[in-house]
Amino acid sequence: MSNWSARKWVLAARPIGKPKESDFRFETGSVAQPGDNELLLRTKFLSLEPYIRARMDEAKSYATSTAIGEVMFGRTISEVLVSNHPAYSVGDIVLAKAGWQTLSLSNGKDLRKLDPMIAPPTAFVGVLGIPGSAAYIGMRVIGQPKPGETVVVAAASGAVGSLVGQLARRAGARAVGIVGGAEKCAFIKDKLGFDEAVDHRAADFEQRLAAACPKGVDVYFENVGGAVWTAVWPLLNQFARVPVCGLVAQFGAPVPPGPDRVPATIRQILSKSLTIRGFIVDNYPELFPDFEREIGAGLKDGSIHQREDVVDGLENAPAAFMGMLEGRNFGKLLIRVAD
Amino acid sequence: MSNWSARKWVLAARPIGKPKESDFRFETGSVAQPGDNELLLRTKFLSLEPYIRARMDEAKSYATSTAIGEVMFGRTISEVLVSNHPAYSVGDIVLAKAGWQTLSLSNGKDLRKLDPMIAPPTAFVGVLGIPGSAAYIGMRVIGQPKPGETVVVAAASGAVGSLVGQLARRAGARAVGIVGGAEKCAFIKDKLGFDEAVDHRAADFEQRLAAACPKGVDVYFENVGGAVWTAVWPLLNQFARVPVCGLVAQFGAPVPPGPDRVPATIRQILSKSLTIRGFIVDNYPELFPDFEREIGAGLKDGSIHQREDVVDGLENAPAAFMGMLEGRNFGKLLIRVAD
Repeated sequence: MSNWSARKWVLAARPIGKPKESDFRFETGSVAQPGDNELLLRTKFLSLEPYIRARMDEAKSYATSTAIGEVMFGRTISEVLVSNHPAYSVGDIVLAKAGWQTLSLSNGKDLRKLDPMIAPPTAFVGVLGIPGSAAYIGMRVIGQPKPGETVVVAAASGAVGSLVGQLARRAGARAVGIVGGAEKCAFIKDKLGFDEAVDHRAADFEQRLAAACPKGVDVYFENVGGAVWTAVWPLLNQFARVPVCGLVAQFGAPVPPGPDRVPATIRQILSKSLTIRGFIVDNYPELFPDFEREIGAGLKDGSIHQREDVVDGLENAPAAFMGMLEGRNFGKLLIRVAD
Repeated sequence: MSNWSARKWVLAARPIGKPKESDFRFETGSVAQPGDNELLLRTKFLSLEPYIRARMDEAKSYATSTAIGEVMFGRTISEVLVSNHPAYSVGDIVLAKAGWQTLSLSNGKDLRKLDPMIAPPTAFVGVLGIPGSAAYIGMRVIGQPKPGETVVVAAASGAVGSLVGQLARRAGARAVGIVGGAEKCAFIKDKLGFDEAVDHRAADFEQRLAAACPKGVDVYFENVGGAVWTAVWPLLNQFARVPVCGLVAQFGAPVPPGPDRVPATIRQILSKSLTIRGFIVDNYPELFPDFEREIGAGLKDGSIHQREDVVDGLENAPAAFMGMLEGRNFGKLLIRVAD
């Protein structure tokens, strides 16, 4: 017995390589009344991120897998519509993992009440959320940029890359961002303060990247996979650090193509004393308080910027998601599900 | 005007791949009388190590290059024959970089007086020298083995590998050594305390290595290059660490063959949170006091072992060196130049 009608996207088929429309199915159904200690949530914003692609696979990954017919995974900014839970009141804005749907039930676990005084709620899925924490932790634990060093990051207008560049600048390092297209190049230089922007669509991309890094590369924050590695590899300086984070490029392909393979030889790793290190933010909970304090303050005082790319309507989520995997979003991608 | 006749090996030609006899030339000459603040040294032992191969190349390396016609590089245990230097007396035993020759002049720089009470002098080119420090620093800074973890090292009967295994055991970890031949297998288990020994000459080497590591590999101390990487890679556990140290295999080849290429994909580096990190001992001078104290104490109390492979006569240095690059030595390789 339910009063609530909900719409949702479920996983229809496991994609081979890039997802296509038929891998998703739009369904309408009903949501049960929340029971004791349960909540009914209305999704305001759905956050789309590359790692969702990994959950569409059956393959072992660092994340768990979404079952066929199950609602697509996603973090959301949700509003409490009904609460039978002592910790939440109607109208609270929470960070949830409600997925690609308009309404959802919750037992209160995995929720976090958001304080709009700290930052706009959508920041908590962007620069103050998992993407931001990936940039922060990767730079603090592995990248460790020093004044005068050169930091390179791809997808530099996105949620992770934009913070990587801004953190590099804060540390006194040169920030070189790789993006697609002139508009994004202008954005990261003019709005985010990157020192150089390199368009990966340029035919002479490798030459341009080298020219943008005349003193070599000290930190390459790896968050895309693909061809950038090959261009960055010969530029790496002695003692360069390579935090390995997200994986936009390769989640589009079932078998990683050539460039996904690290171009490293052990001779170069040794002769340059390189550090290549994968990390998952979940393993650094002790750094989250620092992260939220520092980046929250930066958002408040205007020294940290985030661009959001908001698409209206849950029905447009698959197209927006597929576009993101091809770099067509411009900023942190959000679906506005309800006002 | 000199009373001193000396013999020496000079670099005759830059090797293409593996060095051959004609790349070395034996010469006899005279050594000048030491001047003010100079010393005349007699080489007692010449230490042969894989990195000497790198110095035979013109190519940029982490070490400098030996010129054609110049005496071959090498660390030595030398005796002071004549001293015009206030810090050294006749009869002192010193660690020097005198190279492949019987006598040499020194200005006192780059010398270190050895205290035979701490350890036998040859230990200072082995387990208490650069090879030992590579094992110690790589394990302490990068490997960081924990109780119950599995540590794999190749060339496990050599100067670096033997200490890696013994340090793993000290930390409560399982030590799995890779060596060539049954005699070395028996040695590392019976004398060095390795838990498992795997013969890389076995046709089913990869299967044997996997069987020796039923709980996977947490630390792979990379000191050889070559095919071992390929076998170890699929066995690496979550959070595995790969210190990248010496390079026996690849210094035998001018262009690194396939297996020299790290088999890593960024997907695996991320999904397993791997750390792959090159290092050079020169960059960790602050750890040398700890290293010498800990390993020196271990040598004294008998808990640290080192096997030496002593070849008599400077004339045999090239053959011994070429054999070492093919793994034919059994223990730390030394040339006894003079008693």
